[in-house]
Amino acid sequence: MTSEESPDHVRHRPPTALDKPRSVIVACPQFKSAINLSRIVRLAGCCGIEHVIACGNNRIDATVARDAAKSLHIERRRTLPQRLVELKADGFSLIGLEQTKTSKDLHHFCFPRKMVLVVGHERIGIDASIMPLLDEVVEIPVYGMPYSYNVATATTMALYEYCKQFPNG
Amino acid sequence: MTSEESPDHVRHRPPTALDKPRSVIVACPQFKSAINLSRIVRLAGCCGIEHVIACGNNRIDATVARDAAKSLHIERRRTLPQRLVELKADGFSLIGLEQTKTSKDLHHFCFPRKMVLVVGHERIGIDASIMPLLDEVVEIPVYGMPYSYNVATATTMALYEYCKQFPNG
Repeated sequence: MTSEESPDHVRHRPPTALDKPRSVIVACPQFKSAINLSRIVRLAGCCGIEHVIACGNNRIDATVARDAAKSLHIERRRTLPQRLVELKADGFSLIGLEQTKTSKDLHHFCFPRKMVLVVGHERIGIDASIMPLLDEVVEIPVYGMPYSYNVATATTMALYEYCKQFPNG
Repeated sequence: MTSEESPDHVRHRPPTALDKPRSVIVACPQFKSAINLSRIVRLAGCCGIEHVIACGNNRIDATVARDAAKSLHIERRRTLPQRLVELKADGFSLIGLEQTKTSKDLHHFCFPRKMVLVVGHERIGIDASIMPLLDEVVEIPVYGMPYSYNVATATTMALYEYCKQFPNG
């Protein structure tokens, strides 16, 4: 069977307009696998987020990140803590995506509009030096093997939930 | 800075128990990039979904899919339409993830509990031969460049929303 497009398809519909720009920054560590940064950059672009902080030298693969690699501001840092302290002083809530003893369930979490979403390293999660800076930590229920979402997958769920809560920006 | 784990971390918490098994099947075309199938398999496993249908010969990379590659039933098909007709006769609603003229917004969509989530090819979306079989089509709002989510990213959002609506299975 040759695949073909249906006449009902509307591919690449114009984006949903936001009343105001999103006040969201996604802060990433240096990942073990650079592809996770590229995936998060494409995701952020589609969600209308204009600013990603990336640590270290993870390369952005334009075949994965697509136009988001050009349209987003990608800020490079060596590490995150000092920059997070500055952003907190600028009024951003720091929301970590991690499983901790006191983390809240994403299904029931109300995001602050102005926030930095702090994501963790594939193996060790959010660095211990960052944990005390966070205003809140959210986790995502897991129901089966392998018992942990890929970091870009978890970021996808968190940003989906954020966009649902703030459909107008 | 050496990355280290925080004492607050609870990595790989035991999964959330379901009262009953999920009645969800994820149906995939032969993807352009096999990595998307591996990502969807890991995602499905974490969501407690036990059955994925995969077309063609996309290889499952166990370093991406992890234990889900073994714990899930992966059914191989040449194409989807005939199998979807059978599943519909077995009481599964067929829910497509696609942008069409009449697709509904995922943010406001109520999933049927027993469903097949039909996802599309990276470039052409859901095949035209499948569209007339679908009971409903859902789409995800996009707010910025590159104006389309990766297929595994879109599947992540749909399954997150499903799990939120059916936290107990």
